[in-house]
Amino acid sequence: MTEQLDELADLIRDAKLRDLRLALDELNPGDVVDFLERLGVKDRAVTFRLLPKDTAVEVFDMLDQALQHEIIEGLQDGDVAHFFASLDPDDRVRLMDEMPASVARKMLRHLGPRERSLTSIILGYPSGTIGRAMSPEFVAIPEHWTVAQALQKVRRAGAEAETVYTLPVVDRQRLLKGVVSLRDLLIAEEDTVVETIMNDADSVDADHDAEDAARRCADRKHLAMPVTDSEHRVVGIFTVDDALSIIEREESEDAARHGGAEPLHRPYLSTPVLRIMRSRIVWLLVLGVGAALTVSVLGAFEEQLEAVTILALFVPLLIGTGGNTGNQAATTITRALALGDVSTRDVFKVLWREVRVGLTLGSTLGTMGFVLAGVVYGWDIGTVIGLTLVAICTLAASAGGLMPLLGKALGADPAVFANPFIATFVDATGLIVYFMIAMAILGI
Amino acid sequence: MTEQLDELADLIRDAKLRDLRLALDELNPGDVVDFLERLGVKDRAVTFRLLPKDTAVEVFDMLDQALQHEIIEGLQDGDVAHFFASLDPDDRVRLMDEMPASVARKMLRHLGPRERSLTSIILGYPSGTIGRAMSPEFVAIPEHWTVAQALQKVRRAGAEAETVYTLPVVDRQRLLKGVVSLRDLLIAEEDTVVETIMNDADSVDADHDAEDAARRCADRKHLAMPVTDSEHRVVGIFTVDDALSIIEREESEDAARHGGAEPLHRPYLSTPVLRIMRSRIVWLLVLGVGAALTVSVLGAFEEQLEAVTILALFVPLLIGTGGNTGNQAATTITRALALGDVSTRDVFKVLWREVRVGLTLGSTLGTMGFVLAGVVYGWDIGTVIGLTLVAICTLAASAGGLMPLLGKALGADPAVFANPFIATFVDATGLIVYFMIAMAILGI
Repeated sequence: MTEQLDELADLIRDAKLRDLRLALDELNPGDVVDFLERLGVKDRAVTFRLLPKDTAVEVFDMLDQALQHEIIEGLQDGDVAHFFASLDPDDRVRLMDEMPASVARKMLRHLGPRERSLTSIILGYPSGTIGRAMSPEFVAIPEHWTVAQALQKVRRAGAEAETVYTLPVVDRQRLLKGVVSLRDLLIAEEDTVVETIMNDADSVDADHDAEDAARRCADRKHLAMPVTDSEHRVVGIFTVDDALSIIEREESEDAARHGGAEPLHRPYLSTPVLRIMRSRIVWLLVLGVGAALTVSVLGAFEEQLEAVTILALFVPLLIGTGGNTGNQAATTITRALALGDVSTRDVFKVLWREVRVGLTLGSTLGTMGFVLAGVVYGWDIGTVIGLTLVAICTLAASAGGLMPLLGKALGADPAVFANPFIATFVDATGLIVYFMIAMAILGI
Repeated sequence: MTEQLDELADLIRDAKLRDLRLALDELNPGDVVDFLERLGVKDRAVTFRLLPKDTAVEVFDMLDQALQHEIIEGLQDGDVAHFFASLDPDDRVRLMDEMPASVARKMLRHLGPRERSLTSIILGYPSGTIGRAMSPEFVAIPEHWTVAQALQKVRRAGAEAETVYTLPVVDRQRLLKGVVSLRDLLIAEEDTVVETIMNDADSVDADHDAEDAARRCADRKHLAMPVTDSEHRVVGIFTVDDALSIIEREESEDAARHGGAEPLHRPYLSTPVLRIMRSRIVWLLVLGVGAALTVSVLGAFEEQLEAVTILALFVPLLIGTGGNTGNQAATTITRALALGDVSTRDVFKVLWREVRVGLTLGSTLGTMGFVLAGVVYGWDIGTVIGLTLVAICTLAASAGGLMPLLGKALGADPAVFANPFIATFVDATGLIVYFMIAMAILGI
């Protein structure tokens, strides 16, 4: 596949646009998306304009928002309006969030009245809530209807709706009473009353956090969840494909921040080098400030270092092990938080677990450190290294377990908060502990 | 919510089982799952037995495989057979993969002939392929049928099928010709021939890698994808909820390995401390071997360290910055590989990008390091630190970008491969570069 895409890229380079157009006709929209995501801005604009209009709409719908935004910028006003109108209301709002307000307003004006009103329903909810990610185009079934009536409504209104496979069931006040699946409607007798075959609804409040709702939708294997207002009236529907997009975005953020960088929010090969550099430099500077602290800490023990230079040899090993242990705990807890396996209220449970894990890890590594360093550098140095490893592992595992919870409690991204703090804290306190133990045992 | 779950936990502790049973009746199955995932093995077994049989089956279906396994172990033979039979064939096979072969065989014998034959279809595909994760219970529609005939078949066979919302369309040889959505069937006129309203099928070969297929299903927003054999006959269907489980499992693995630990594959609070410790110790030992290398490298420069003790102060800062830069690059590329944004064939593109990113990062940090270290420790030390930062950042970004690709090319998990290698390589070569530069500039 990649080979085929490379051949297409050659066609662009050689400006063989007619051949490229023919080759693009052979690809299905998903493959076209893969291809576009590997190109720079200009080549992508050229290629996109070669697509037949129908394919272009489908491809546009599947692209990353960042790339949609760039394509929109490169198009004529009339074409923009066309693509904009072809999106689902929820996708449209997500794209608008990326654009300057003036452009967004101008594009809203191009929409028909129905599309405009659907869009503004979603715009009414704050960014980051599920209201902003839901679709207002749902088919609700009154609870006292028969199966035949319900199916009739699906046939009539189904083409426009976001989904018809999970249908909210409502009473006369439009309050949510349950959900019925299209499969159950089809299997049931025509004169069955919907109320008798509906299931309990697992619904979500429109003001609820979007990531949390997306995780719940995925965990509980729902194809769609009804979204309700504060009075439990149905206002929209949230589908599993939107849940997937939200989860993937969050996973990419978490992965990037674990690695100490801001997420790119766009495919790697389509991102300019300077932009990649900017996504990393802030983090390196933040971590650098923490590292500068280690210079001062070591500076405070310069005298001891001069007396026993051997102590310097173990510095990378000790703070490296501390950093690794802290990272392990932080990663586990950050992931458990994301999956909803632990909450901020579990702080003492987590601390008690991590202290024990840290002590066990420290004792194992400490014993090995004691023997190895002892054999090579003498038993007093071995004792210092062994004891320091026990202390550092316990410290690091506890700090690593607590930091994501603290970050979450303060309303920050657990990974953002945990990463620099653990590095700085574990490095600095680890070195202090190391020299304290060394001074006590070596008498320096 | 967590508060409510804590109250339930109190009921277990106080052995108020009657109250617990009443409280459990109030919860929906999803909440019961959340509760069970916070309990230890014994409490979970006690609670599970209190559930009404219907709820128990639903809850069991949603649990993590590791917990399903433990519950199965704690039940009587007759009950085991009941739960085992209630699972979908693909879920059943996944659970069997976790159990000792003798138990799995015994449980297969308890199944009815139909369930047993469905299960063995899936068991025929190698583990890790999509054939192992698909469902053989699909409803295929012959292309020459009318919409009325197709809907009739869905009504008749729909209750047993994994999904009826995406239906494979086949010819007389059962070769896949396309897919038709239940929505399109419902909206169309009854005498329309299915062939005329079907869409191109985005199908996947049964031997295809399961993670790759799951990503494609999610990226392209399919509710289900037909699975075919080598002759393009339909053999099963793969649904988005199974894609989600596979992706979540892979994400958890990647996250754990980025943090330098093996994945737990089960909720954190339900995992014994010793098991958490075991998931981390191997990685710490591997990384420790790498760190031991830094002790030898520093040992080789002991003379220079004794001559200029100040050099020791910058060791944590320099290798820390190198590690961070390498990690950033490795994380970005690992993620891009997982999402299919880059492939192993892009190795030179990636290298050229990362060399430039590393140089830019190194120049920025190097300039700051030069000024700050220069002011405090003199301009010769400043020059050493500045130059070393440029070199280390370039080295680390390139190595960090290459390692995941190399790992992938060798058939290993990119994250597993990248992590220890970067730590060891960047630390060791970074220190050598540091002392080389120091010896040249300081004349020691």
